[in-house]
Amino acid sequence: MSHKASNGVSCSSKILTVDNMNPNVRRVEYAVRGPIVHRALQIEKELKEGVKKPFSEVIKANIGDAHAMGQKPITFLRQVLALCTYPELLEDNKFPDDAKQRARRILQACGGQSVGAYSASQGIECIRQDVARYIEKRDGGIPSNADNIYLATGASDAITTILKLLVCGEGRTRTGVMISIPQYPLYSAALADLGAVQINYYLDEDNCWSLNVAELKRAVDAAREHCNPRVLCIINPGNPTGQVQSRQCIEDVIRFAKQERLFLMADEVYQDNVYADGCKFHSFKKVLFEMGPEFSDVVEMASFHSTSKCYMGECGFRGGYMEIINMDPEVKAQLTKLVSVRLCPPVPGQALLDLVVNPPLPDEPSYSQFMKERNAVLANLAEKAQLTEQMFNTIPGFICNPVQGAMYTFPRITLPQKAIDKAKELGQVPDMFYCMKLLEEEGICLVPGSGFGQREGTFHFRMTILPPTEKLKVMLKKISEFHQRFTQEFS
Amino acid sequence: MSHKASNGVSCSSKILTVDNMNPNVRRVEYAVRGPIVHRALQIEKELKEGVKKPFSEVIKANIGDAHAMGQKPITFLRQVLALCTYPELLEDNKFPDDAKQRARRILQACGGQSVGAYSASQGIECIRQDVARYIEKRDGGIPSNADNIYLATGASDAITTILKLLVCGEGRTRTGVMISIPQYPLYSAALADLGAVQINYYLDEDNCWSLNVAELKRAVDAAREHCNPRVLCIINPGNPTGQVQSRQCIEDVIRFAKQERLFLMADEVYQDNVYADGCKFHSFKKVLFEMGPEFSDVVEMASFHSTSKCYMGECGFRGGYMEIINMDPEVKAQLTKLVSVRLCPPVPGQALLDLVVNPPLPDEPSYSQFMKERNAVLANLAEKAQLTEQMFNTIPGFICNPVQGAMYTFPRITLPQKAIDKAKELGQVPDMFYCMKLLEEEGICLVPGSGFGQREGTFHFRMTILPPTEKLKVMLKKISEFHQRFTQEFS
Repeated sequence: MSHKASNGVSCSSKILTVDNMNPNVRRVEYAVRGPIVHRALQIEKELKEGVKKPFSEVIKANIGDAHAMGQKPITFLRQVLALCTYPELLEDNKFPDDAKQRARRILQACGGQSVGAYSASQGIECIRQDVARYIEKRDGGIPSNADNIYLATGASDAITTILKLLVCGEGRTRTGVMISIPQYPLYSAALADLGAVQINYYLDEDNCWSLNVAELKRAVDAAREHCNPRVLCIINPGNPTGQVQSRQCIEDVIRFAKQERLFLMADEVYQDNVYADGCKFHSFKKVLFEMGPEFSDVVEMASFHSTSKCYMGECGFRGGYMEIINMDPEVKAQLTKLVSVRLCPPVPGQALLDLVVNPPLPDEPSYSQFMKERNAVLANLAEKAQLTEQMFNTIPGFICNPVQGAMYTFPRITLPQKAIDKAKELGQVPDMFYCMKLLEEEGICLVPGSGFGQREGTFHFRMTILPPTEKLKVMLKKISEFHQRFTQEFS
Repeated sequence: MSHKASNGVSCSSKILTVDNMNPNVRRVEYAVRGPIVHRALQIEKELKEGVKKPFSEVIKANIGDAHAMGQKPITFLRQVLALCTYPELLEDNKFPDDAKQRARRILQACGGQSVGAYSASQGIECIRQDVARYIEKRDGGIPSNADNIYLATGASDAITTILKLLVCGEGRTRTGVMISIPQYPLYSAALADLGAVQINYYLDEDNCWSLNVAELKRAVDAAREHCNPRVLCIINPGNPTGQVQSRQCIEDVIRFAKQERLFLMADEVYQDNVYADGCKFHSFKKVLFEMGPEFSDVVEMASFHSTSKCYMGECGFRGGYMEIINMDPEVKAQLTKLVSVRLCPPVPGQALLDLVVNPPLPDEPSYSQFMKERNAVLANLAEKAQLTEQMFNTIPGFICNPVQGAMYTFPRITLPQKAIDKAKELGQVPDMFYCMKLLEEEGICLVPGSGFGQREGTFHFRMTILPPTEKLKVMLKKISEFHQRFTQEFS
């Protein structure tokens, strides 16, 4: 790849080029912040510079970023974080006592009583204990040990760390990792980066994106021909698909993982985001332990949670944790060593996590406001989940499963053959062509289904349900109009 | 590795064991948080439980963690961060106007005006612009472009990201990376993790740990026999060695990098930590551009900075940045894509970085207090640097170079042959044996020189100069007494 740069020097004289860089990095893709988002940012700049467009703002429904979409931070969380950051405020009467008490406890656990000190690499001990108590409460008393909790720089960090531990072998013995299709592209990106083999299993779109163990079996059997399947990744509630797994389904998955000797990774970052009637979040840990020691003594697992989703939406703090279960003690020592190289997760994110797992109690002064704010966020999300499904299902050519949980919808869209041909002509995948046109014409930024994976010949997009209700309604109407126009144009 | 676990089940039945885990991870070592620190934490617990020891507290001089050693946060930094975290405080009269103005500007650059929103993956644009202005000012007007600035989760994150880009090839074509010995073990850990080839070049202990280009040449020539040397890493001011490179030395290194076609990585996180008379920090960027277009148009480089060191010592926030120079635009696009997978660096750390590169101006209300606090920290460090060198050089068997910069001393210690033999008997490296004994007898936690690398047959330890002056004096005295006792015991 030799060509002239603007200064006339041949670029092939560079030490580092795309041809001699890390080939795994080249293979990494991450659609949630891919070319369409890049173009959305350009359009925003053009709008600022006064360029005329058929719209006055870009609505970014590409990423689960609640605060960017106008959701207000929960007062209690931010009060405690401000107190931890600037402890002089502990003398201020404006802050409630329970917020001060939480801040004092966190500061006492910090080196030099400052959130500016490094923490233990695994995370601050008293916060890990709070996480363990939270898990026990969530899971009806099943014990959780703080030694098995690792705090992290968001769940993404924890997920890639566990994947990294699990990768070994070459050729047919290379580690294979089973991921759902559609998937959250952190998984495919991390696997490309690590040079692991991606094993696709397909969710059943006709059955609310449910997971079918027969499909898992098909996928693992096929994969054993060319790699060593060792890991099964589950996202529940689903991203981008929004389904909530039944207890029975989780039991089947655990049984399958045991039988096929797969390390289970349960991505449960949307555990508080469940909206649909009759749906309930069941943690993999709880189901595993309810299945008895035959399973709970042997199935190796890691589960992941985050401060970025649920009612908090505090993405910028990069807080999260994982709980490891039945990990070989020697491997666990290796994990502890590995995370120590990066010193520690951001301490403000750790402090935030502590509040999430240890929120105000009914007899504390902040309780009623906290619950009011929290419930308002979740009720609003539930309303928007339903609104989106209903509206999409009125558009001819759209089929939209219920948004049972999480914060996305992943409707299936029919694209006319002429549009598919046109996209091919332009060297684009058809749903990218569709989403790019939607962005240019309506200022709406979605992510094409191809960025998450979908069955050959089907097309989708992922849209967050996060914009404020009125803006969401406008957006849904615009999408509807666009789709009908698009269908006509290419008929 | 098959053995019985407590429940009687053979551990060899685990899916993930040390024998089948990622072999690169197994090779990772990070002495700064290694076995000695593990033991220090145990001893702290024992003290709390009332176990009698010849000391009442463990002094942890193993890690550059200023706040943990009692350094107070800089008021202005924390005020702005508290305002960003809990914007209701913008109405509070207790906060100075310049702090409020900084906070408003940062919030306006955040999605939904919240530090809880994701930022652009490369970092918030106005902060990257402030970083570029800071670099220009530091470097006497040499231009810096915000497009070339990438914010990161501490400098460690940025360093491993650049190393990851550079790794390719197999066997004799595998990427080789030149690192100083002694080194900061992030480098050896990252290289092990990436499966890159570590190429050691030795700093000259007899000349204040200076870098000699003849030694670089020796190392690269030897390495070309078995790998493809592509990268040269420099730490200036030095960690663990505390030397500050002369302008001439930097020029020689740049000339060498150009000649040998090496990508330069300049770790400059201690750039404000320069204490010795006649020493001055010269950035690699500035020297590169002063050498003229013959160099500044072609030498590919990345330089790194952090919010964790200097006068701030805000390790817990995990803030940092890198500036890339002359990177191939296609590779830069790959870098941008790669960092997008982790979404963004922690936003509070980004905000903190903004204040570090854009501190109060002389006509602003916070200026005088800010300068007073900043200068007090740096003056105290300079005093402790000198004190440490002087004291160590009075101990028979110690040779200690001046601590010209950074925040560590790395004295050479003479160990009696009997102690070396005893260590071998125990299966320990001799300086680990020494440091472990010092920890057990005096409660002082240092890192053995072997964790950083040292010339065969020499022994050192790394000690931070961060404890408060009075505690540092006690510690130095205890080390002196211990060393004399140790020498006698093994004579």
